[in-house]
Amino acid sequence: MLKPQTHIIKLIEELNKIPGIGKKTAQRISFFLLKQEKDSVMSLARAIIDAREKTIYCSSCNNITDTDPCEICLDKSRSKKICVIEEPFNIYSIERTLLYSGYYHVLHGNLSPISGIGPDELKISNLKSRIVENNIEEIILATSPTTEGNATAHYISELLKPLNIKVSRLALGLPIGADIDFVDSVTIAKAIEGRVQV
Amino acid sequence: MLKPQTHIIKLIEELNKIPGIGKKTAQRISFFLLKQEKDSVMSLARAIIDAREKTIYCSSCNNITDTDPCEICLDKSRSKKICVIEEPFNIYSIERTLLYSGYYHVLHGNLSPISGIGPDELKISNLKSRIVENNIEEIILATSPTTEGNATAHYISELLKPLNIKVSRLALGLPIGADIDFVDSVTIAKAIEGRVQV
Repeated sequence: MLKPQTHIIKLIEELNKIPGIGKKTAQRISFFLLKQEKDSVMSLARAIIDAREKTIYCSSCNNITDTDPCEICLDKSRSKKICVIEEPFNIYSIERTLLYSGYYHVLHGNLSPISGIGPDELKISNLKSRIVENNIEEIILATSPTTEGNATAHYISELLKPLNIKVSRLALGLPIGADIDFVDSVTIAKAIEGRVQV
Repeated sequence: MLKPQTHIIKLIEELNKIPGIGKKTAQRISFFLLKQEKDSVMSLARAIIDAREKTIYCSSCNNITDTDPCEICLDKSRSKKICVIEEPFNIYSIERTLLYSGYYHVLHGNLSPISGIGPDELKISNLKSRIVENNIEEIILATSPTTEGNATAHYISELLKPLNIKVSRLALGLPIGADIDFVDSVTIAKAIEGRVQV
C-alpha cells in the first residue's frame, strides 16, 4: 500500500492536529490550498506566524492585543464599568451590541473543580486593584449561564463584597426570535422568574 | 464599537477564506493556535508553504507528487491496469483496499456541461498514449456514481473503444453494514439489477 507523498501529507497531518479538523477536512483544506494563488497561501502562512509571534495579553485586562496595555484599557473616555468575561472574543460580541462602553476583564476560563481549575488558574488577581485604582462603579458578570459560569460569577461577587460596589449579572430569559416550544424548560423557568411588568 | 486587534483578526480573516471554515471556526482555530507552542505553529506554517511551493503534478498520471514522474508511475512492478479517478486523493482510498495494484489516471474533475467543464478541461489527453505505450490491459473507471461521474465514465469508454481494451466500472450496490431501510431506492434498484447468484 502506497503512502501518500511527503509535503501534502505533512500538511494534512498538521491541519489534522487542530481540534475540530478531522482527516477528511484536513484533506479538503490541503487541496484547496494547493489550488490557490501562491500569494494568498503565503498570506495565510504569514498570518499564522504573525498572530503567534506578535499577539500578547494585556497586562491589565488580559485581552489579546498587539500592544500593552490594549486599546480598550488605554481609552480613558470609557464608562467606569468593568465587564467580566470568559474569553477574549466575548469582547467583540458585547461591543457589537453598542450598549456597553466600559472596560473588560478576561478571566481566560471559568472555575471548574472537576478539571482542576480553581481561582489561581483564572486571571482574577488584579481585578480588585483595577476597580480601586480606576474608580470603577459597576462590575457586570458576563460569564456563561452554565454551572461553571454561575460558580465563577458567584465566586467573584463574594470576592468583591468588601469593596461595596454594584455587581450585576446578565439577565436570563428567552432569546429573541425563539419559539417557546423549542426553548428548554430551565430557560422558560428563568424567564418566568425574571418576568418584567408591562 | 471596537474593531478587533490586527494580527489575530488578520488570521481569522485568512482562515475564514477557506471554504467550510466559517467565522466562528476561524476564531476557534485562531485561539487554539495562539495557545500552542511556537514550534508547532511554525511547523503548520512551514507545511502550508512547502505544500504549496513543492507539490507538483505528475506529468504522466496527474497525481500530486513531490517528484515527476510520481512514485506510482515509476514503480514498474505494478499490474498492467489503469484506474481512472476524479481527484488525487481517490488514490489513497483505493490503495487502502489492498485489492488493486495497478496505475492511476487522475482526471481532476468530471465532465459537467452545466459548469462548462468539457473533455478539454479534464486531464484526459494522454490517457490513450499511456495505454498504448505501457501495454495496459484493463481500464477501471472509478469516477463517482453520479450524473457527472457516469457521463465521464461513458465518455472515456467511448473514447477507448478503438483500442479494443477491457474497460470496467466499479460495481453499484448496498454499502457494507447498511440498513436497507436507510438506503435510497436508486441504490437498492441497482443492487437488485446487479444481484449475484449465491
